[in-house]
Amino acid sequence: MEPKVDSSNLSPCTKKMEKEKKFKPSKELPSGFQDRKEKELLIRDFVISNIKKVMIKYGFQYLETPSFEYTESIGKFLPDKDRPGKGVFSFKDEDKWLSLRYDLTAPLARYVAKNFNEIAKPFKRYQLGTVWRNEKPGPGRYREFLQLDADYVGTKNLQADAELCVLISEILQMCGLEKDDYIVNISSRKFTNKLFEKLKIKSKDQISITLRALDKIDRLGWDEVKKLLGKGRKDKSGDFTKGANLNNEQIKIIEKTLKSETPNSEDILEIIKIFEAYKFKNYKFDPSVIRGLEYYTGPIFEVNLNFEVKNSKGQKIQFGSIGGGGRYDDLVSNFGNIDCPATGISIGIDRLVFALIQKKDFKIKSTRPIVICVFDQKNTKNYVEILNKLRSSNISSEIYPGEGKLKKQMEYANKIESPFVIFYGEDELKKAEVKLRNLKTGKETSVKIENLVNEIKKLI
Amino acid sequence: MEPKVDSSNLSPCTKKMEKEKKFKPSKELPSGFQDRKEKELLIRDFVISNIKKVMIKYGFQYLETPSFEYTESIGKFLPDKDRPGKGVFSFKDEDKWLSLRYDLTAPLARYVAKNFNEIAKPFKRYQLGTVWRNEKPGPGRYREFLQLDADYVGTKNLQADAELCVLISEILQMCGLEKDDYIVNISSRKFTNKLFEKLKIKSKDQISITLRALDKIDRLGWDEVKKLLGKGRKDKSGDFTKGANLNNEQIKIIEKTLKSETPNSEDILEIIKIFEAYKFKNYKFDPSVIRGLEYYTGPIFEVNLNFEVKNSKGQKIQFGSIGGGGRYDDLVSNFGNIDCPATGISIGIDRLVFALIQKKDFKIKSTRPIVICVFDQKNTKNYVEILNKLRSSNISSEIYPGEGKLKKQMEYANKIESPFVIFYGEDELKKAEVKLRNLKTGKETSVKIENLVNEIKKLI
Repeated sequence: MEPKVDSSNLSPCTKKMEKEKKFKPSKELPSGFQDRKEKELLIRDFVISNIKKVMIKYGFQYLETPSFEYTESIGKFLPDKDRPGKGVFSFKDEDKWLSLRYDLTAPLARYVAKNFNEIAKPFKRYQLGTVWRNEKPGPGRYREFLQLDADYVGTKNLQADAELCVLISEILQMCGLEKDDYIVNISSRKFTNKLFEKLKIKSKDQISITLRALDKIDRLGWDEVKKLLGKGRKDKSGDFTKGANLNNEQIKIIEKTLKSETPNSEDILEIIKIFEAYKFKNYKFDPSVIRGLEYYTGPIFEVNLNFEVKNSKGQKIQFGSIGGGGRYDDLVSNFGNIDCPATGISIGIDRLVFALIQKKDFKIKSTRPIVICVFDQKNTKNYVEILNKLRSSNISSEIYPGEGKLKKQMEYANKIESPFVIFYGEDELKKAEVKLRNLKTGKETSVKIENLVNEIKKLI
Repeated sequence: MEPKVDSSNLSPCTKKMEKEKKFKPSKELPSGFQDRKEKELLIRDFVISNIKKVMIKYGFQYLETPSFEYTESIGKFLPDKDRPGKGVFSFKDEDKWLSLRYDLTAPLARYVAKNFNEIAKPFKRYQLGTVWRNEKPGPGRYREFLQLDADYVGTKNLQADAELCVLISEILQMCGLEKDDYIVNISSRKFTNKLFEKLKIKSKDQISITLRALDKIDRLGWDEVKKLLGKGRKDKSGDFTKGANLNNEQIKIIEKTLKSETPNSEDILEIIKIFEAYKFKNYKFDPSVIRGLEYYTGPIFEVNLNFEVKNSKGQKIQFGSIGGGGRYDDLVSNFGNIDCPATGISIGIDRLVFALIQKKDFKIKSTRPIVICVFDQKNTKNYVEILNKLRSSNISSEIYPGEGKLKKQMEYANKIESPFVIFYGEDELKKAEVKLRNLKTGKETSVKIENLVNEIKKLI
């Protein structure tokens, strides 16, 4: 049963013995980036296919903008307007700067401005795309991630805002989450603005630092956020973040207000009424929902998962937000003489996939090929015959793709978790049959070639 | 039948009358980048789903590497080793340079080196991903595009090379191409190397310029390529490209050799034998297949479409290559003491989609939602009731998402190419029925609410 293989071809892909002195580039990835393997990708495909179904059902158009935009086109959309270079990856291209998109909202606004006369108004579009953040990476914080955005552009109708919350809920349920597993927290920027008026905070800088600080309640807790509202905060690594310089009185009022639980802005009351029409109950008014970005003008929402997940160190953590959004009525007008209210929501797909893997025992299984072993390369024609039979019946299969004796071939088949190997040596050839070996049980069966496809279909 | 709408909400998203003097960012895209609309994206999804099916059937693993790599990790893989900054988008990140990937081969080599002890050998993986080229954009030449790569790493077995050609053919056929529509042209780098020996060209620089020049035969034709083989060539824009400085005698020998049609290298003869076993006939030996990249070491292939397509100006053009690849036995070894022969193929997905749209009348249709018109916002609850009925039967539908009178609502429904609008005014409410208006025929039917879903399913 030993296969004959041309020995000049043996043992490729082995570590070289002699150490060469030439330059070796890094095998590592830059920090904040990661490779993704099959299991994660298959679950991601499952999530994406659910998203697409919901988007069609809700009547959104499918759109894709490129990775790059002129830096000036996304500048207004950055978390920190005053430092447009911060947070994004930018290149000088001839005489203008280009940046990798930071989110999918800025490109949408640019698209709407560019195609204003052609598009239907309101314009409902969704986009799935990678976004990049040139930020300090940390545990679980990546510098590129896949995002879904769904937006209504050109409407002040609060039904749009309400429907975004219903829609995200439907996506999560299709992905296998129960109603207890998540909640849509809603608030309104109008509510925060009133608070700023009451506190007599007028400086744009102070407002912007305050918003960013409050957006971190979830992650840092009130005690740390209070430092950011005051003089500033030193993080674990020793880096100091400048605070909003509010006094203790102001900070107390903020804390008290954000811990209240009665919706008191008109837009939220209206949205809650629409939720009732939709029989949608998985929401909560939560004034501590802030959203760090300055451009929001009305209702804001955040989707939180309620179950614990484990981080890469095996520690239990509260997962927190996997998406959110809100109304941004003044953003598109940046691009020209256009008045264009809008509202939108994002989901962080990679974060959702990570949470789903922890929550659910997914039945999604990688299909691994049946391996046809090579006994003698002169019989390639016969192996291909079997292979074509299997593949034309859509059975995942391959002829052992390397060089090497049977032992190596079996090691390979086990390593890739192949369900079966097929032996088709001289003896079997004569009898027009193959030996089918189940790699889990070790059981071998002789099968006539004419019955092979049916036999395998029964077994898989 | 006039809907009542809160007039304070009227006409959002209109051009502002007064011109403001503040800075307006560009609405345009940087050159070499483009927005993609629904039709193209749906056909792309169709192509991708075919690719995934074939990849599973052939036993490839699904892998994804990030957009960025350390520049040093991809330097060896660039078309022009001596100018690593050329051709890629790079950033300084703390003390090291990062680059957006130029292809999917370099990241694969890095992945294999990094995970050498964990992966099965041979390692068969596929990746779908965007690649970026920081090159001068031109008509039909983009700076980012989506690519499929399928590679065998860790095998010298030429069956791998042969199977890549069979695989790409199967993908094209699943996408709707006929056998006459495409051909896999094959040659071998061994063949070109012999030619260089015969011509006594030894300078690495000269070899590299010659390869890049010959790779352009398809696009520029022999006369222009001869200039690139000699002193150099001025293109239409006036830019001058330095030539390989070969003499007339050498250029004549090259032309004669590359126009020959008899396969004469051992590897090609072996592959042709394997093609016969696969009963694969859609190939041609073509020594003018060059592949510009220096790293190829053996068989090389290129997939050409045989039909004419029209460019954006409506001119007929020969479409040329939509993919190709070859054997690169020395590439992975750059990363360390690893000896790891490999072979792979790429398909340019966007180019394939463009060609398919021109070739075939795709039946893929965007699903547009049924629009439920708004007569009075106080009846939202009733509209939502209808909406929930439709959506829970998976019928694409929406309540008119904007503000505005019925006329505007109808304009909207026509603009988005909605199949039907639903009128559910006071009269209809009383009778527990709706008016269903077919927007193509203009025909209106009254339908009892209990029959609505079935009625629509019949009509769609």
